Amino acid sequence: MTEKKKLTLKDIAKELGISVSTASRALKEHPDIAKDTIRAVKEYAEAHNYVPNFLAVNFRKSRTFNIGLIVPELVHHFFSTVISGVIDEAKKYGYNVLVSQSNDLLHDEKIACRAMLASSVDGLLISISNETLEGDHLLDFISEGKPVVQFDKITDKLDTPKVTVDDLEGAYNAVGHLIKQGYKRIAHLRGRENVKNANERFQGYFKALTDNNMQTSSNWIKSCIAISEQEGYDFAKELMESPNPPDAIFCITDLVALGVIKYLKESGYTIPEQVGVMGFSNWKLAEVVSPGLSSVDQHGYNMGIKSVKLLIELIQNHDLENQATLELKTNLVVRESSLKQPD
Amino acid sequence: MTEKKKLTLKDIAKELGISVSTASRALKEHPDIAKDTIRAVKEYAEAHNYVPNFLAVNFRKSRTFNIGLIVPELVHHFFSTVISGVIDEAKKYGYNVLVSQSNDLLHDEKIACRAMLASSVDGLLISISNETLEGDHLLDFISEGKPVVQFDKITDKLDTPKVTVDDLEGAYNAVGHLIKQGYKRIAHLRGRENVKNANERFQGYFKALTDNNMQTSSNWIKSCIAISEQEGYDFAKELMESPNPPDAIFCITDLVALGVIKYLKESGYTIPEQVGVMGFSNWKLAEVVSPGLSSVDQHGYNMGIKSVKLLIELIQNHDLENQATLELKTNLVVRESSLKQPD
Repeated sequence: MTEKKKLTLKDIAKELGISVSTASRALKEHPDIAKDTIRAVKEYAEAHNYVPNFLAVNFRKSRTFNIGLIVPELVHHFFSTVISGVIDEAKKYGYNVLVSQSNDLLHDEKIACRAMLASSVDGLLISISNETLEGDHLLDFISEGKPVVQFDKITDKLDTPKVTVDDLEGAYNAVGHLIKQGYKRIAHLRGRENVKNANERFQGYFKALTDNNMQTSSNWIKSCIAISEQEGYDFAKELMESPNPPDAIFCITDLVALGVIKYLKESGYTIPEQVGVMGFSNWKLAEVVSPGLSSVDQHGYNMGIKSVKLLIELIQNHDLENQATLELKTNLVVRESSLKQPD
Repeated sequence: MTEKKKLTLKDIAKELGISVSTASRALKEHPDIAKDTIRAVKEYAEAHNYVPNFLAVNFRKSRTFNIGLIVPELVHHFFSTVISGVIDEAKKYGYNVLVSQSNDLLHDEKIACRAMLASSVDGLLISISNETLEGDHLLDFISEGKPVVQFDKITDKLDTPKVTVDDLEGAYNAVGHLIKQGYKRIAHLRGRENVKNANERFQGYFKALTDNNMQTSSNWIKSCIAISEQEGYDFAKELMESPNPPDAIFCITDLVALGVIKYLKESGYTIPEQVGVMGFSNWKLAEVVSPGLSSVDQHGYNMGIKSVKLLIELIQNHDLENQATLELKTNLVVRESSLKQPD
């Protein structure tokens, strides 16, 4: 940093190894912040001529009534429904929405963020890419006085408000249903290990098995990377050709489940009699595929509404410190693919 | 109009009953414009103190590097692919994209347009709603020096560049394929009569029948309003229960075809043996449904790229007079639903 550049909250946070919101609260002597931290921040700010009201002043001036929205993928039923909810709700408050996609790549996500900042959005809604672990690039928004709300795919390493679905409970209920239907050997095609919702769905799966005194095997748990139909197909083949094949497969998303169904049908397995299949997301295709795919509905439209309402509230209140977490409930949609014992 | 308000190109066009681009070209004495028109426009402009260079000057100043994009529906596979193409391509030129939806309602489309104008977009990409017949509200962009490009669902009543697919040829090839497969009584579930692409698909259907010396009946042609799965289901029922049922049904979109397949399967008809089914758009669901649905691929991603490239070119060239029409080719994707005579 050159001497001439104005010191930002982000600089202070970085220098002291704390989050931007902690630095901000420390400057205001917030009771949640440790005395030592408050002292350190204030001393640093004073020594470097930090102008504490800079953000608040800047905030009001720069209002464009544009909000940024970045999703991993646009051609994706769930994210389409979220975007639709965001745009419909934003309209009610007079906000327009700039939309971009990261293609699940950190590099593209950073470019999208820079473009949004260049366009002076008033705040950002983001569902992070599979490659995003820290999310430091999102701090640029906060240090410019623009709130960020994370939704669906989030990182806990960043202190921003978050809107998620209760993935753990959704998975727990889905696997609980498979158990009630009489499936005994339930495999799981999970997502990447660094992705929060993949971990929560895995935990829900594991908890449902444990609570029902059922066992699993590491051979029955496979990690999808691309979360694709092809992976579903390939892992289903691997599982069913193994010495100890499962009798049900719980998949991280409907697209993966689609590949599983394709393999099982091609190989002459009956669904749901011989093998049960469960997806997650409840895309349109879950209804269309044959047999109909049981899945977990995530209510994307509602998530879009909730996320943008929260963001607009933060923008209007000049609130960069909020760390609210909203967890939306899912519901199980049972179709033929898991109905071993119809009533 | 009060005396104080600055006269715009739109005012002149309206007063003289000509299009904005005609008025603009008349002022520049463009050779394509009739002498009388040129004289009338120039006289009117002079009498009302019109400042002819206003647009060009304003143009450069107001650049925001934001583009507006309005589609009928966001939760729609085809439009998602178009949006994805627009955003990916716009990024290369440093443009962000404000996205909105009209829900296929004229009222909502007007609101979306006003919001985009308020946000000072540099230009607009729009696929109009089913209710939009004239598109006068789009002139507000042109009179503010912001080019408009229409794509997919367009109106010829507005002189703007247009990017469409060759719907007529797509439908012609689809119905030609049904004829080659030996279907003799081909019904068509078409779209609204005031919607251009619905008319072109109907014309393609009709031309394929005529060129092959085949007949149709008005009883075999039904107009969908909502373009929904339910309409497909209901019309299929009506057609198949009629005294002279068809042996193939060509549908305006895959979603309508989905309803047709649902009805046929429920009622015990075999597809493609007893009844062939053809969709249009080639959504993901066409691949997923059983039997696989033959359809016409519209290459939405490419349409998005082409449309935004054209718009950016117009913005960069300050070109409000361009009326280029780009017609993209479709291709037929044959799956089981129409394959009566497999090789």
